[in-house]
Amino acid sequence: MTAYKRHIDNTAISDLTVARLSVYLRCMDRLLELGIETISSQALADRFNLNSAQIRKDLAYFGEFGVRGVGYNVRELRQYVVEILGLDRERRLIIVGAGNLGTALCHYSGFSGGNFLVVGILDSDPSRIGDPTPAGLLVEDAARLGEIVTQRQVEIGVITTPASAAQSISEKMAEAGLKVILNFAPIRVRADEGVLVKTVDLGVHLEELSFHLTHV
Amino acid sequence: MTAYKRHIDNTAISDLTVARLSVYLRCMDRLLELGIETISSQALADRFNLNSAQIRKDLAYFGEFGVRGVGYNVRELRQYVVEILGLDRERRLIIVGAGNLGTALCHYSGFSGGNFLVVGILDSDPSRIGDPTPAGLLVEDAARLGEIVTQRQVEIGVITTPASAAQSISEKMAEAGLKVILNFAPIRVRADEGVLVKTVDLGVHLEELSFHLTHV
Repeated sequence: MTAYKRHIDNTAISDLTVARLSVYLRCMDRLLELGIETISSQALADRFNLNSAQIRKDLAYFGEFGVRGVGYNVRELRQYVVEILGLDRERRLIIVGAGNLGTALCHYSGFSGGNFLVVGILDSDPSRIGDPTPAGLLVEDAARLGEIVTQRQVEIGVITTPASAAQSISEKMAEAGLKVILNFAPIRVRADEGVLVKTVDLGVHLEELSFHLTHV
Repeated sequence: MTAYKRHIDNTAISDLTVARLSVYLRCMDRLLELGIETISSQALADRFNLNSAQIRKDLAYFGEFGVRGVGYNVRELRQYVVEILGLDRERRLIIVGAGNLGTALCHYSGFSGGNFLVVGILDSDPSRIGDPTPAGLLVEDAARLGEIVTQRQVEIGVITTPASAAQSISEKMAEAGLKVILNFAPIRVRADEGVLVKTVDLGVHLEELSFHLTHV
């Protein structure tokens, strides 16, 4: 029924589009939970407080979706978003920084669940090495980063160290061959060409709530 | 020089616009660090990998910014975004759930820094109550939620409990008078009319990195 013309032009895809694809994926999961198999972009927008023109534009980057007048096949669209996001295979993570945040992420369902798997948590503090985590992993020596990345086929590095250590750890991750890094340390990290460092700033969520407190 | 016509129409402002305002705020901070006082929407877009049409559209919601051919006055635009987001006054938070994530957020600079202030961390586990946190707060009894919200003029509730407790805690927060709640538990929380619950899914960041691993 639905014809997908796949012509992905990466240069045209912004980070915001990719973030929205993650949102669409969650919407598709919810629709399938509710037994909804077909949906128009307008109904999708109305149900999840999204923008229908934006939905059509985002999905148009990736080819031609949906049947005019009928809408998207939810199951097929979900599968396609999964493929676009590269979620159809296991992605292994290591976390460097075994403090509270690193330990929390180690057993967070979004980090070890679905296709993601935390395969190591490292720290440079000798007093922490060998400590058990709630996820069942033992804290390992950050000096073994390169070896662990290679042996365990790690693709994603997560930094949960204090700000002062983040730059040095990201460089060590890049040396170990990691191409993508998620940085939770509250500092801008410089990266070499070919390495993507995404810094997560949890404060943006509070700013959004602050907006609502002010205006709603 | 710059004339701001302020006509905020809340109904037209999507969550994504508000999230982008947080991004613009960080861009303005960075520009001021670099000594840049004026910038065009195109230069702003180029420097921070944003979309210039989107920037103009987002800021147009809030009135008329910038001088044609000159650009935005960075300092004035920053101050205006601060006011729009309600960041020109202190916002007090409590965190319920004194596990690793709650403890981490308790001393995270984005949560106790700028205009945000964590004034309490609560738990319902008697063995945790009284424990010190790195932020200097002692863990308090979650049964005292209502009293603490009133006495300390708390405006924002943060949930870092296991998924099983999140719904009940969000209801207690609403009963205590909180209008906005940030939920880190990996579960959808239902909220009464007039209460905004924003659930943070940290897994979206990994999906974005997964996209880059797949396509770049």
